[in-house]
This record gives sequence, C-alpha cells and structure tokens, in this order.
Amino acid sequence: MVIVIQCKDQVGLVAAITGVLAKAAINIVSMREHVDTVDNRFFVRIVAEGASNADILQQQFQAVLPQNADIKVNPIPEKKIIVFVTKEYHCLSDILIRNHFKTLGATVQCVIGNHATLQDICERFDIPFYLVPHEDKDKGVFENEMLDIVKRNEADYLVLAKFMRILSPQFIKKFPIRVINIHHSFLPAFIGANPYRQAFERGVKLIGATAHFVTDDLDEGPIIAQQIIPVNHSFTASDMVKAGKEIETAVLAKALQLVLNDKVFVYRNKTVVFE
Amino acid sequence: MVIVIQCKDQVGLVAAITGVLAKAAINIVSMREHVDTVDNRFFVRIVAEGASNADILQQQFQAVLPQNADIKVNPIPEKKIIVFVTKEYHCLSDILIRNHFKTLGATVQCVIGNHATLQDICERFDIPFYLVPHEDKDKGVFENEMLDIVKRNEADYLVLAKFMRILSPQFIKKFPIRVINIHHSFLPAFIGANPYRQAFERGVKLIGATAHFVTDDLDEGPIIAQQIIPVNHSFTASDMVKAGKEIETAVLAKALQLVLNDKVFVYRNKTVVFE
Amino acid sequence: MVIVIQCKDQVGLVAAITGVLAKAAINIVSMREHVDTVDNRFFVRIVAEGASNADILQQQFQAVLPQNADIKVNPIPEKKIIVFVTKEYHCLSDILIRNHFKTLGATVQCVIGNHATLQDICERFDIPFYLVPHEDKDKGVFENEMLDIVKRNEADYLVLAKFMRILSPQFIKKFPIRVINIHHSFLPAFIGANPYRQAFERGVKLIGATAHFVTDDLDEGPIIAQQIIPVNHSFTASDMVKAGKEIETAVLAKALQLVLNDKVFVYRNKTVVFE
Amino acid sequence: MVIVIQCKDQVGLVAAITGVLAKAAINIVSMREHVDTVDNRFFVRIVAEGASNADILQQQFQAVLPQNADIKVNPIPEKKIIVFVTKEYHCLSDILIRNHFKTLGATVQCVIGNHATLQDICERFDIPFYLVPHEDKDKGVFENEMLDIVKRNEADYLVLAKFMRILSPQFIKKFPIRVINIHHSFLPAFIGANPYRQAFERGVKLIGATAHFVTDDLDEGPIIAQQIIPVNHSFTASDMVKAGKEIETAVLAKALQLVLNDKVFVYRNKTVVFE
Repeated sequence: MVIVIQCKDQVGLVAAITGVLAKAAINIVSMREHVDTVDNRFFVRIVAEGASNADILQQQFQAVLPQNADIKVNPIPEKKIIVFVTKEYHCLSDILIRNHFKTLGATVQCVIGNHATLQDICERFDIPFYLVPHEDKDKGVFENEMLDIVKRNEADYLVLAKFMRILSPQFIKKFPIRVINIHHSFLPAFIGANPYRQAFERGVKLIGATAHFVTDDLDEGPIIAQQIIPVNHSFTASDMVKAGKEIETAVLAKALQLVLNDKVFVYRNKTVVFE
Repeated sequence: MVIVIQCKDQVGLVAAITGVLAKAAINIVSMREHVDTVDNRFFVRIVAEGASNADILQQQFQAVLPQNADIKVNPIPEKKIIVFVTKEYHCLSDILIRNHFKTLGATVQCVIGNHATLQDICERFDIPFYLVPHEDKDKGVFENEMLDIVKRNEADYLVLAKFMRILSPQFIKKFPIRVINIHHSFLPAFIGANPYRQAFERGVKLIGATAHFVTDDLDEGPIIAQQIIPVNHSFTASDMVKAGKEIETAVLAKALQLVLNDKVFVYRNKTVVFE
Repeated sequence: MVIVIQCKDQVGLVAAITGVLAKAAINIVSMREHVDTVDNRFFVRIVAEGASNADILQQQFQAVLPQNADIKVNPIPEKKIIVFVTKEYHCLSDILIRNHFKTLGATVQCVIGNHATLQDICERFDIPFYLVPHEDKDKGVFENEMLDIVKRNEADYLVLAKFMRILSPQFIKKFPIRVINIHHSFLPAFIGANPYRQAFERGVKLIGATAHFVTDDLDEGPIIAQQIIPVNHSFTASDMVKAGKEIETAVLAKALQLVLNDKVFVYRNKTVVFE
Repeated sequence: MVIVIQCKDQVGLVAAITGVLAKAAINIVSMREHVDTVDNRFFVRIVAEGASNADILQQQFQAVLPQNADIKVNPIPEKKIIVFVTKEYHCLSDILIRNHFKTLGATVQCVIGNHATLQDICERFDIPFYLVPHEDKDKGVFENEMLDIVKRNEADYLVLAKFMRILSPQFIKKFPIRVINIHHSFLPAFIGANPYRQAFERGVKLIGATAHFVTDDLDEGPIIAQQIIPVNHSFTASDMVKAGKEIETAVLAKALQLVLNDKVFVYRNKTVVFE
C-alpha cells in the first residue's frame, strides 16, 4: 500500500497521519518525508503493509489534515501512457521493450508520431501507432488531431520521447503535470534547438539530458531527473548527438520509473523526488 | 534538534514517536525512516524545530518504545576524534584542513603516528602529534602505548587515516562501532595488502575506496561509503596508487561527514545511511 | 580507413608506420598509441583518410615491423555476432534494437537460447532463434549442438548476454578472444553465482557489472569495460538485481561498441582500450 | 622527455616528427594525437625515453614542420604559480597541501588576497601572502598593485582560486592562456553571480563546477575540466554551496594537474586535453 500526501505544513502532521495508520494496525515499511521550510509545504510518501479500505483511510486522513491536502491512497498502480515521437528510435524503443516485458510500471496505450518512421517498431510490439503529420497544417489543427487520439485513449501521462514539435500552451494546459519531456541537454544550459551543436561550439567536457514536466514555458518546467556523460575534444557534434542518445534514454527511463511509482511531487516549479 | 532511534519494529512506532513530538509542539523538518523487514528492525532520524528538554523527551520516547530501543536525543553535536596515521599525508591533511576551518563536524584531539613523517603537518595546525613506533616491540606493547594516549584524550571515534598496521581484535573490541578505516579498494575486491598492485595485475577499469567500521574481522566491518574512479591501460600500478589517493580522501571525508552527523546506523554487519 | 597494430616494442615503430602512410599520401586523422614498458609491447590504432589498397599497405607495414606483428588494415567493418541467452531479456533486447536500427556496428546472425523464453522477441525482429535445451543432456552434447549452429552461422564474436550456463574450456578454446560475457558484478568482487545476494549480504554501497572476454578460467578473462551504480540500505536483494540489469545492459553495449570498432587489444590477461 | 606540438595539419606530420625521434634513437613511450578536421589543426603530445639535447631536437622539429608550429621540447617541468583568493579556503588549502607535499606539479610563489582571511593558512605553510584590498580604490589601481606583485614573483600561471573580483580585459590580456579560474557552476548554465541560488531556484538535480582559462569575455574562456554532483530537493541553497565547494576543489585540482603537466592545448575557444 502506497500513500502520498502533499499539504501546508503544521506541527503534528506526521503524528496525525501515522496515528491513522497505527489505529488501522497498518505497519509502515518505509517512509520519506520532506518539509520545504521556505514555502511551508509538507510532503510524505509511505509504503505500508496491512489490509485496509483505501476510501476509508482517505477520509480518515482528510479529517486530520489541513484543508486542500492532496492525498492519494493507493494511487493507480498501473498507469497508462501515450508516447509522442518524431523519428528518433532510442527512447521509444526502450519504452516499448520495458512495456513488452511488463517492467515499465505502466501500459503504453498508443504512440503518436508526426512522421511514419517509427510505425514499424510499434507494430512489431503490437502497439497502435497513429500518424499525425504536422506539415501543411495549422498548429491548432495538428494539435486537435492529436487531442482526438488522446481522448479516445485514456492516459495518465503523455510522454514526449524525442517529439520534435513544440506543443502550444493551450495543449499543455489540458494536461497539467501530466506531460513529460526529455530535453537533450543539461538544463538550463543550451535551452532551445540544437543543444549538441551549441555544446560542441562551446567545447564543454560534459553533456547531459534532462527529463521534466512540460509547462507553457518552453524547457522551463519542473525537473524530474538529470544525468551527464563526459565528452572531449575528439567528439564531433555528431558524436555528441550519439552519446547524448544513450543518456537521453537512461534519463527518460529513470524519470518514468520515478513518476509512475508516485515518487515525484510537484510544487511551484520544482519537484520533490523520493528516490 | 536531531533524534535518532533504532529498535525492534512493531506497528505504530512512527505514530508513537511523532506523537511525543506533536505534544511538545515540536515541528518535524525532515524525517528518514527505514524498516528492515527481514530482520524486523526499525530506524528513524528526525530533524526537528522547537525548544524542548532533551532528557524529558528521551524519557517520553522510552515510555512508548520497545525495551532496549537505542534512542539518542540531540547526540553530541561536536564529536571528538583521534586520527591514526603512518606516512601518507592525503587523508590526514584533508581532515586537518576541515578541522582548522571548523567544517569537519568534529574536533581533532590529537594524531597518533607510528612514523614521524606527519608530525610537521600536525604542528603547523597546532594539533598534538604522538609518535608511537611499532618496531622492535610486541604488538601488545605497541597497542598499549596507543591506548594510553587514547585514554588521556577523550574521543568519540578513532579514525584510521591510512594507518598501515593491523590492530588486534583486543584493541578493536574496546571501541565497538567507533573505529573508522579507509580501505584502498572497492571492497570486497582486493582484500588485504597491496590492492592497487592486484588491481593493476587484473587489468580492472575502475578502482575504488571503501570507508568502513572496523571489526575484528579484517576489512569485513560494516561499509559506510564507497566510491570509484575509472582507470585504463595507461595507468601503471603507481598511477593507480596516485588516483586512489584522491578517491580515498573523498570517501573518508564523506564517511566522516555521515557518521559525525549521526546519519549512520549499524546493525548486524551492515549500515543504514540516511544521506 | 582504420589500422590497428600490436607488436614487440622497439625504437622507430611509429616513424616506420607513419612513414608508410606519408608515402602513400594518407592523412592521419587520429592516432592512439600505447607502449607497455613492463611487457615491452606496442599498440597503435590509426584512423586515416585517403584512398589506398589495403593489401599493399599491409605488406608495406609488415616489411618495416617486427616479425609476428599483428597488423590489421581495415578490419572487417561490419562484424557478425551470435548471441547466447537464457531467460533475461534486457541485454538481448538492447542488442536487438541496435541491430534493427543499424547502430550496433554488427549484424546479429542468430540467437541461441537454452530456454524458449526469448524466442518471441527474436521473432519480432526477424532474427533466427535456436532453442538448445541443456537439460537431461551431457554438457558435451549440449555444446556440440550449439557448435553446429555456430558453424552454420558465420560469426566474428559470440556474445553471452546473460547466458547462465558455464561453457567448457574445450568450447571456449575454439574461439580465443572471441567470446564476450557480461558478468553481474564488479569483478573481481563477488566471483561466481548469485553476486547480488552476496552484495546484499555484505552491505555494499555500489554494485557493478563487468564485460570481459571469456577464457577457460571462469570470470577471469581480460576485462573490457566496467561500470557501477550506487545502492543503499533500502535496496532488497531483488532491487539490486533490478538495478544491476540497467548497468549490465549499459556495460555490455559499451563493450560491444568498443570491440566491434576495433578499439580493444588483448595481451596477457589484460586489454588496451582506445576509447 | 615530453614533447608537445600544435600546428596546421598536413600529410606526413607524424612521420616527420617521429622520424626525428627515431634518428635520435629516442623511444616513444606514449603518444596522443588529434586532428581537428574542421579547423585543420594538428596536436600531438609525446612521452619519450632516451637522452638527447632539447635545443637540437627543437630545431630538427622546426625544420620538418610548418612555419609557426608551436613546439615545446621538455616544457618547464616545475611551473610556478600565483594564487588569487578572497575568503573561501577550500581551493587554496588543497593547493597549499599539494604544494607542501610536492605533488602539485608546480611551486606556489605567493598568494594574493583582497581580504586578509586566508593570510593565516598561507603563513602556516610559509607561503608569502600579499593583502591587496579592492575597497575605496579604482579598479585600475587595484589591478596595478596586484600586477606589481606578479612582476616581482615569476609565474607561469595565475590561478583564481575563488577570487571573487572580475579582472579587467586589460589585466587578462597581459597573461594570455595563463589565467585559470574555477567557476562555481556547470558552464554555460548559470553564468555570472550566485549560481547556486539560481540552481536552487531552478530545482536542478545536478550541480557542477568548471575550470577554464580566463579570456576577456567573462565565464566564456576555454573549458579545461568540468564535473558534477547530484543534489535533490532536500538541499537548501546553502547546502548546494557546501556541496559545490567539494566539486570546485576537485575540478580545480584536476585542471591544474592537466595544465601543469602540459596535457592541455588551446585553440579558438576550446581545449584539446590528453588525459
């Protein structure tokens, strides 16, 4: 049983929450807690053992916690995701493999691509692929076509796995804290297009990748995970792209594992991640 | 205010502990909890805000916790350590610098060396240095001379900072979970003497260092911290030693920071570390 | 054009080799050289630009180098590999994906499994899968069945991608420096079976994986690549297995990339790797 | 014997260079070579064994290389450096320790500080400390006072070890590719002041440090070395500063080790580093 709670901080919150569990004879196996003392916010994630009714627990927590507390008892254990792609295979393939062998912690409902390049790999794994070209088309029309597909396929999260089109704020606002992107740089360095070319020109010795929630401010949403790899003078810009793909795959996989296991809280423009 | 507790696990422990704090109007700032479900042991570390009497809190915790619970309310904030050395300067110097600028989280009482090599650096920092040669002497006599010095200088921990003599089980037993060693390899690889030579011969691509508590079983005590660095074919055995020194310094510094801030619990032959 | 040479060291080798290239008006783009001064061995890898006849170059190099020099001009650019598996999907899937998108640097000829578990994933990528059960069968018979398949499928390297059977020295000797294994530990720690259980019991703070050439001495062949990831007290033995799979996949991918691009030299029981 | 050469690329350079060595019966122990095929520049670093006259070799190299080739035979083995500091002790202390134990690969001539804070630690190591306050003073006057000290103390490199004043382009131009700075961020992220505060606000999961040569464009000179450490939500801005100090110390130490051993070439705004 997993319990995640975010609310305004005050004295006695942990006692109140764990008191509810103790009364229900539920044993806490592990517990991570964080208070942002600047923003006065409280975050807790509890893994517990013991049978209990989730709805009743939810009500009992609500009774002892501040109003507007965000309480999830047993959040959906197997989330559903939709993956957006363009032409690059590495992130999508990693997701498809994990989905196929049931180690993703989610079910891939379908894949939406603005090019047909990755249709074949989806079909090999029996995952529906929807081709939605963006060319010769208003952005609004393009996004509405994708929205239709999203509506027909329930999804907890939309995963931009190297989707090379910028989604409009109107689109993003429909899925608050539900769109995850992999950005091909160690944000906030090299914001925007062609970061590897920028990294090459600058002569950096490390390149990175960042997985983040998408907000309407491009590349500025809450960061979930970041990682780097060393590079050197012998790397051409295209070598950096190649090395970058390995790290993009790893960082997106890690971010999904964290989000899909309810280990990530978002507030302001930041995350609390209980790894 | 820091509170660390280790005891047998049972339902309601967190509720009981945090109930005590709530009653005293003490606010929990951060809290790390772990249950070893195999061994049925409970560990918690709480950082809290609010004035309170440590002794009274200690009694109140004792009243609600299992017998034999190991409870520390406000453990000594500034520990005292004695450093044991032979000839290598890198770990000792790092400790002396941090001690000098008051960022070690402890006070170095004195340094004991079986060679005089490092006397000068200690004197430069006004730290007493005791020369205790091991040569032409029974191990018992050698250790008794050191014990005398330890007795005259109060110390919470003895730190073996590249002390190249093996201490007898009799010596070690006097300081259970109070002797910290830096071992020049990624244990359990290359146990024993000359691990860099062994690493070189084996052609490994990473070398490491391990900080651990010393028990009477050589190199087998509970591990506190480990780290590695990449090496390659161009490293001679002596290059590996040199690279190893950097990592030894870093790992010992990290282990001390963890132990001296009461972030390390020991049970069986393992540690729980709340980083 | 790639040129790799290993031979006894002597004065003037680089001058002799690059003299041959200069005469042929071939420009050196990058060059890595190493001399093992203990063993008196010379290693060089040259990437060059300029049209030339490989056979003539080979003869010209031979003429200026010590006898028995191991010279490869333009080694086979697209190697062929056969992958051996048991039940775990992670390493094989990564190889199949890279093979499918032509970024492996090799062609997977076929997959041999002693269980049928991974037949389906191979078929999804149109890669022949041969089931060779080991049960109720002499080891010699088992290995001969596999040898037959290897003979019918040309292969430069045999890749043990979590193949959980130990191959006999007789088998291994048929493919000197041509069998690559991924071992689920940071060798030489935790040699043998069930290293994650050993790592868990020992309470290590890092776990690793090692890719190495297989010799007749189990887990003792020349190391190609190693990597680690941090773990902590909250990892169960099975969490360590899970984390280990990520690192195994990454290390084997890296080792294959190195070997398949002729960046690895082997001598004694070690490798020279020009990353 | 170390030989480093940078020049315009052309066919036969390595043959020409190594031909000179072969004729002198000098054996190449290790050799790193790089060609920037975009900029058409050639870089080589050779470690060789065998007695020879450096001046004669220099002339022989000059005779076979393009005009304007930058040739160094046996560059000064023990460089001299001057360290500039403000109040933070960590980078300076590390340098002083290595200098004291003769493992820095350079001699610290003196330390210049715009505050008196670090005078004491310098005196403990018998290193001259010059206090040059910047307050109530024109920048030109301030810099001239420092220039006087630099002139009286020969130095190959000026090391800004957390020197918190920006030096004018006029000052910098006097020491081209001879001023090394440690910047407290993973450049180019968080350029300018207070990068840890910026990193904290942005909620990054990694922080880093960058050692670079100083040019007249602030924080934009050629990068020598970079490194990162993971951070998370539990880090306050001041925790990030503390963690950052560890990485700053390590990165500056690494950069110095590379530069002082003639392993770094500079061209355009980049470095070639033969680690």
